[in-house]
Amino acid sequence: MEIYHHTYTLKNCSFIVNYDSIIENSNIVIEDGIIKNLGKEVEGDEIDCSNFIVIPGLVNAHTHTPMIILRGYYDDAELSEWLNKMWEFEKNFDKKLMRLGSEISILEMLINGTTAFVDMYFNPLDVKELAEIYKIRAFAGFTFLDSLNDPYFIDKLQRTLTPTTYFKPIINVHSVYTVSESTLKLAKQLQEELNEWVHIHVSETRKEIYEIKKKYGVFPIEYLNNLGLLNRKIQLVHVGWIASWEIDLLKNTTVTYCPTSNMKLATGGAFPLYDMFNKGVNITLGTDGPASNNSLDLFIEMKYGVLLQRQMYWNTDVKAWHLFKIATLNGYKLLDLPGGYIKEGNIADLVLLDKNKIYPLFRDRLLSHLVYYATGSLAKGIIINGVLRWRKELENLLLEKTKQIYELLNS
Amino acid sequence: MEIYHHTYTLKNCSFIVNYDSIIENSNIVIEDGIIKNLGKEVEGDEIDCSNFIVIPGLVNAHTHTPMIILRGYYDDAELSEWLNKMWEFEKNFDKKLMRLGSEISILEMLINGTTAFVDMYFNPLDVKELAEIYKIRAFAGFTFLDSLNDPYFIDKLQRTLTPTTYFKPIINVHSVYTVSESTLKLAKQLQEELNEWVHIHVSETRKEIYEIKKKYGVFPIEYLNNLGLLNRKIQLVHVGWIASWEIDLLKNTTVTYCPTSNMKLATGGAFPLYDMFNKGVNITLGTDGPASNNSLDLFIEMKYGVLLQRQMYWNTDVKAWHLFKIATLNGYKLLDLPGGYIKEGNIADLVLLDKNKIYPLFRDRLLSHLVYYATGSLAKGIIINGVLRWRKELENLLLEKTKQIYELLNS
Repeated sequence: MEIYHHTYTLKNCSFIVNYDSIIENSNIVIEDGIIKNLGKEVEGDEIDCSNFIVIPGLVNAHTHTPMIILRGYYDDAELSEWLNKMWEFEKNFDKKLMRLGSEISILEMLINGTTAFVDMYFNPLDVKELAEIYKIRAFAGFTFLDSLNDPYFIDKLQRTLTPTTYFKPIINVHSVYTVSESTLKLAKQLQEELNEWVHIHVSETRKEIYEIKKKYGVFPIEYLNNLGLLNRKIQLVHVGWIASWEIDLLKNTTVTYCPTSNMKLATGGAFPLYDMFNKGVNITLGTDGPASNNSLDLFIEMKYGVLLQRQMYWNTDVKAWHLFKIATLNGYKLLDLPGGYIKEGNIADLVLLDKNKIYPLFRDRLLSHLVYYATGSLAKGIIINGVLRWRKELENLLLEKTKQIYELLNS
Repeated sequence: MEIYHHTYTLKNCSFIVNYDSIIENSNIVIEDGIIKNLGKEVEGDEIDCSNFIVIPGLVNAHTHTPMIILRGYYDDAELSEWLNKMWEFEKNFDKKLMRLGSEISILEMLINGTTAFVDMYFNPLDVKELAEIYKIRAFAGFTFLDSLNDPYFIDKLQRTLTPTTYFKPIINVHSVYTVSESTLKLAKQLQEELNEWVHIHVSETRKEIYEIKKKYGVFPIEYLNNLGLLNRKIQLVHVGWIASWEIDLLKNTTVTYCPTSNMKLATGGAFPLYDMFNKGVNITLGTDGPASNNSLDLFIEMKYGVLLQRQMYWNTDVKAWHLFKIATLNGYKLLDLPGGYIKEGNIADLVLLDKNKIYPLFRDRLLSHLVYYATGSLAKGIIINGVLRWRKELENLLLEKTKQIYELLNS
């Protein structure tokens, strides 16, 4: 069911949940992809939402979509060994299979209530096409990684990448330890010229900290600061190993927390979520790639995002609403779009959850249920830019696509 | 669909997965609740399982079923504050609501692929009846907790509790810090006389360690050892704060790991899984109660069971198969039943998973998928003691039951 250019109403939504407010039994009028009205108004087609809880779309701020092909391929190693194994495979990663991987990940994310994602890989043109096909907001770019690609070639390619309705280019830099200083300077120049944001893994492992400190005499965050990169147009992913004084350098930036991936790869750090949150750093949430998670379910990610904080800091300072805000409003802040919060004038990027599977269903327990109990399997419908799709329809598409993995591998 | 006393065949199971072996395209003949044959034989009714992956039933070795009523009620406190809040509610916990809580938890566990559970609460007679109704293996007893119950009264009650096909009594002791030494001696006597196992929370928080050391001069595990309780008939839950030398005292015991609950309650410990596993301690897995998890999904628990180890020990020593063994074979070892492993002669406690939702589906990735990717939502059918139930049917029952929460609360 695609509804887009005309007006329609999500009628009688049982609950509408933002990170700081809950509305009961209300309608949402959607027109041209925008939330036109929140309240008792009814316009256009009516969709009975009395069995749904409506939440803002979830943003997966860091993933590597094609790597779903590598899900389960190599799970029991720490990051550096794991990365070498991935790169070995990726050298011969068939282009069609890579695209199919992105396609499957996109469908899986849609099914689980993800309305936008930030991707780091080598096939942004596929992602661009797929974003238009599936009407999901995608942010991707060519990736600087010196051992795999000539940075000047990437620079050139990146300049050719143009936005569409659903796709926006970003400047992917793998990490401080896999590119040279001159590559980082290229990225900085692109950042200024194209007004795109730089998306980079940083301070993920103790090994990285050690090596960068040895090479440059400073920690990775300090190093990026010295290069003038720590501005509003940078997204720093992982940040599990940072010194307290580095937090102050991040004030204007976005950082992305990938709790599951960090745990699985035994990076062992402690992402200082509470401190950064209170200092105004824009914290976002990512599953990381499906080869290091191995799911693409932001509900589970929110839960263990809270729980990992509790484990590491021996307190309960971080609560459900922090992660809900991080996965919704903060995500859209990174994307520079008026979403992640359900209100009039914002974009209609929404998720419809089955209220019958959430119990005991009381208003004051809702945020808790969404973070600590819900999984993507409760999402029954997704709306992006006003376009509504039902779970069933997406599941059928996904089933078809997964069959193609084996066809491609055997061809 | 109930098939029980006659013979039937799970035909052409796409994969049959044990922790250390995988069989492809094979049949399972079930007769009188027992796996009669594994191979090409066909007997009785045939059930096409070509779209299923069959695994042994998962054992939830520690939960508090009625507390599903308290799911989402109070999520943001450390253990001692949280417990006080729970006890406050529990003083006036309506008996019917308590039973309904157990019923809902049982259905939720069945739906998620749990074939047996160990329960600590105050309504073992309800649990006994429900176990027979829903044909799930339940292990429960009256609970020693001195501030709530007279231990001599509990002792007397416990002696009246008798087993049935699906229910077995166990001796529940809340913890070392909530009962007196004389209560523990009562439990020890029951353990010997009734040949039931003692199920106790122990070494969960640093506060507990501190208080017990101060009171008795030894750590909690040492204290239980001094009382002669560390034998084959004890199950120690949590064990996140133990000294290395205490591990040796646990050799003959069962311990239960509850990673999610420990994280959520910020207990901050490190469960020494790898060491204990290699020293032959029978490690099992529990969700803990739905008020401290807040899910009852052992697939997710297996995943974060591995991941928490990696976070705390900065290595990848613990792998998918460890947790799969812990949740299956080790669980049945605690129950003293020949299950948790699919082979001829073992009991037919099995879970049927939708193979189309697991991809890329390769034999050598299966254990990884089951632990790192699958959730209970992939379970399509469950067999306990030879009785097969389909997800749909259980979901309908659950939906009905959850509606009764509000009826009971408003009556």
